[in-house]
Amino acid sequence: MSDRIKFLLEESALPTAWYNIVADLPEPPPPVLHPGTGQPVGPDDLAPLFPMALIQQEVTTEPWVEIPEPVRQVYRQWRPSPLYRARRLEQLLDTPARIYYKYEGVSPSGSHKPNTAVAQAFYNKQEGVKRLATETGAGQWGSSLAMACAFFGLECKVFMVRVSYEQKPYRRALMETYGAQVIPSPSTETEAGRAILAKNPNSTGSLGIAISEAVEVAAKDPETKYSLGSVLNHVLLHQTVIGLEALQQMEMADDEPDIIIGAAGGGSNFAGLAFPFIGRKLRGESNPRVIAVEPAACPSLTRGKYAYDFGDTGGLTPLVKMHTLGSQFVPPAIHAGGLRYHGMAPLVSHLYELGVIEAVAVHQTEAFAAGVQFARAEGIVPAPESNHAVAAALREALRCKEEGVSRTILFNLSGHGHFDMQAYMDYFAGKLEDYEYPEEEIAMALAGLPSVNA
Amino acid sequence: MSDRIKFLLEESALPTAWYNIVADLPEPPPPVLHPGTGQPVGPDDLAPLFPMALIQQEVTTEPWVEIPEPVRQVYRQWRPSPLYRARRLEQLLDTPARIYYKYEGVSPSGSHKPNTAVAQAFYNKQEGVKRLATETGAGQWGSSLAMACAFFGLECKVFMVRVSYEQKPYRRALMETYGAQVIPSPSTETEAGRAILAKNPNSTGSLGIAISEAVEVAAKDPETKYSLGSVLNHVLLHQTVIGLEALQQMEMADDEPDIIIGAAGGGSNFAGLAFPFIGRKLRGESNPRVIAVEPAACPSLTRGKYAYDFGDTGGLTPLVKMHTLGSQFVPPAIHAGGLRYHGMAPLVSHLYELGVIEAVAVHQTEAFAAGVQFARAEGIVPAPESNHAVAAALREALRCKEEGVSRTILFNLSGHGHFDMQAYMDYFAGKLEDYEYPEEEIAMALAGLPSVNA
Repeated sequence: MSDRIKFLLEESALPTAWYNIVADLPEPPPPVLHPGTGQPVGPDDLAPLFPMALIQQEVTTEPWVEIPEPVRQVYRQWRPSPLYRARRLEQLLDTPARIYYKYEGVSPSGSHKPNTAVAQAFYNKQEGVKRLATETGAGQWGSSLAMACAFFGLECKVFMVRVSYEQKPYRRALMETYGAQVIPSPSTETEAGRAILAKNPNSTGSLGIAISEAVEVAAKDPETKYSLGSVLNHVLLHQTVIGLEALQQMEMADDEPDIIIGAAGGGSNFAGLAFPFIGRKLRGESNPRVIAVEPAACPSLTRGKYAYDFGDTGGLTPLVKMHTLGSQFVPPAIHAGGLRYHGMAPLVSHLYELGVIEAVAVHQTEAFAAGVQFARAEGIVPAPESNHAVAAALREALRCKEEGVSRTILFNLSGHGHFDMQAYMDYFAGKLEDYEYPEEEIAMALAGLPSVNA
Repeated sequence: MSDRIKFLLEESALPTAWYNIVADLPEPPPPVLHPGTGQPVGPDDLAPLFPMALIQQEVTTEPWVEIPEPVRQVYRQWRPSPLYRARRLEQLLDTPARIYYKYEGVSPSGSHKPNTAVAQAFYNKQEGVKRLATETGAGQWGSSLAMACAFFGLECKVFMVRVSYEQKPYRRALMETYGAQVIPSPSTETEAGRAILAKNPNSTGSLGIAISEAVEVAAKDPETKYSLGSVLNHVLLHQTVIGLEALQQMEMADDEPDIIIGAAGGGSNFAGLAFPFIGRKLRGESNPRVIAVEPAACPSLTRGKYAYDFGDTGGLTPLVKMHTLGSQFVPPAIHAGGLRYHGMAPLVSHLYELGVIEAVAVHQTEAFAAGVQFARAEGIVPAPESNHAVAAALREALRCKEEGVSRTILFNLSGHGHFDMQAYMDYFAGKLEDYEYPEEEIAMALAGLPSVNA
């Protein structure tokens, strides 16, 4: 075992291909369905929204997809990202566990999101697209796509959930610094937005609504395509660069994770770290526990239903089979922890159904307490989303201490919290409450699932 | 010339000693004086404020000072920091210049400040100190010292300039996340603070006042020492780790800087990058132009006087010979660019007097325009302080274009602007004005210099 705290790869170790877990699955995930016909969608159905290269990646069963050189050139600015051994944290906890974290906050926009934003901007530019439309909640995704669009000379239009637009002006300022146009959602620019505002003029928005708006804009304008920051197969594919590097770095550390942890909203940062390790697990080469950590205030894996659902509130997207709380679900306003999407990536959902991965839900006060403990030991202030992974890692490290067992824990520190200090202030001021959904509320949210499930 | 964009050193290339430019100076800098006697101060005069190890570093003439292993262990988390070639920026400017930047925003607190904060916390801990008191303006220094204190188990008390305390709650939240106590200055906790408040109950504070408060707390409490984030010789010494790495990285790039640029407030990030290169210049091994860039709203080098002055407003510190605008000087409230200290590090001032370095002043709208251009090309949003260096680098790069000459420009990107987005918003909203001091105002500020100069 090395006594180092940082495991940095040479630039030459930057992966040349993304890993596609579909190739190693014991059974393929259920198809995506057209909401009108109930039949599987084909590439042509998706062509108004995405460039053909990404549609092909969405359905490919090849195990490796080559990373284009211009994308790798941008990746090289901050990749390979560091893997750290959290020695000061281990000492603070007095645990026999060895805790490692892969740190994605080194990207210029501060999270793992540019791994796919850069790739998506590249493919769109290559196919002559002029403008990308997208949605953002906390703003990690919007700022990453804004940056990627600036790099490749694309315009960028971001529908930002209104409550975030108002409460997080600095995230908005970041997107505008990169040159993006930021619009509070629901807006009057789209039919979907106007329909919501007609029902509720004071709507503070949701990710599902913002997705409807961005999808509508792309569907109606041939020069604009749509870009999604999580959930879809090609997004998870691009994020596997994280785990592919971590595999090499754990080897440098001469160690092997017993437990792999990632926070899960739509599922992309979890998948990014975990899929390459899960691939080995599926091939019988190792057998780690793999844990997706979600907020108790948005518990799609632990309390949602595995069913066909829309990806957005307006019902404009195809139907995907996933763990969902229903496309009308909105987490309580008090929830400051991010990860607010109603559904979970189909591939992550599928692996959960197969029993390959576990899931736990963490309340936000536990998540923030873990984040503060981590910051004092390691210096990095995690994003609220990442705090969920930190909390689960602390649980496992303390279990090691109780049981007197040393285990190797690896988690994804998906981003820093520099744009989320208001949430930390609210936590210190005792303003963050934990919300546990009563069964009836979950059942009510699920009652609206589309009829294709019947 | 390499076609790479990133030059990363192996961990083994992390410097083992800091470089002391005093050893290479053609004449020593003038001594620090006791304000009462007008005689040079000795170590005993400084002992109430600083641990003996740092006092020794303040006066040593040895060329190298060993970096203790526990400090290097912390440095290794983010050091060696990356050196980048700004290729996308070069393309955008269509300049024949080669632009490199050393990026210090990779530290957990986001700037170069931990290079000295960690060292200072270590030496204080080693000498049994319980608590450090300090001041902070924009908050880069306070948050870095707060973090370093958390690492070494010291308490940390930060006097934060009141206007920043109120306008930058997120910087304060960052310090509190690290466990520091943050007090708006002027405060009622000190005689210096109470004296200011008696004269002006609505005082919004200044760095000079906050220094007086922190110095007073340390001088009165044997368990508390004082810690300064710039100006002093030992602070500049610790920052030379930046330039020592950059020397190796420019060699990796097979290039040699013709122009070296750093923003200068107190002078530490400028010195950190420049001193190792200036050492070579003093030894006749190379002859780059070296440019300190200051804000036009706080022009100590370009419009101040080279004279003995206090380091603080209250007159509690020894007298140091430096370029100063007078210890009562406070930049206009409209100035959002940081670098607000009334004086300049004695070593930097001395080099300027010797004609070894140049100085330029940049207005803040030019600085922010440069920062936005940089962000869209390179992804990193610079701190307002760093924007001054970016602006000067752009000037030189455009001069290369006009003259049709290729030069190699190296500048220090001392930190990111994640906690300074309000300043960017104000810039976008057209709220930032440029302030040019009339001669009379400068003359008035200088009229109060202490009598030792007579």
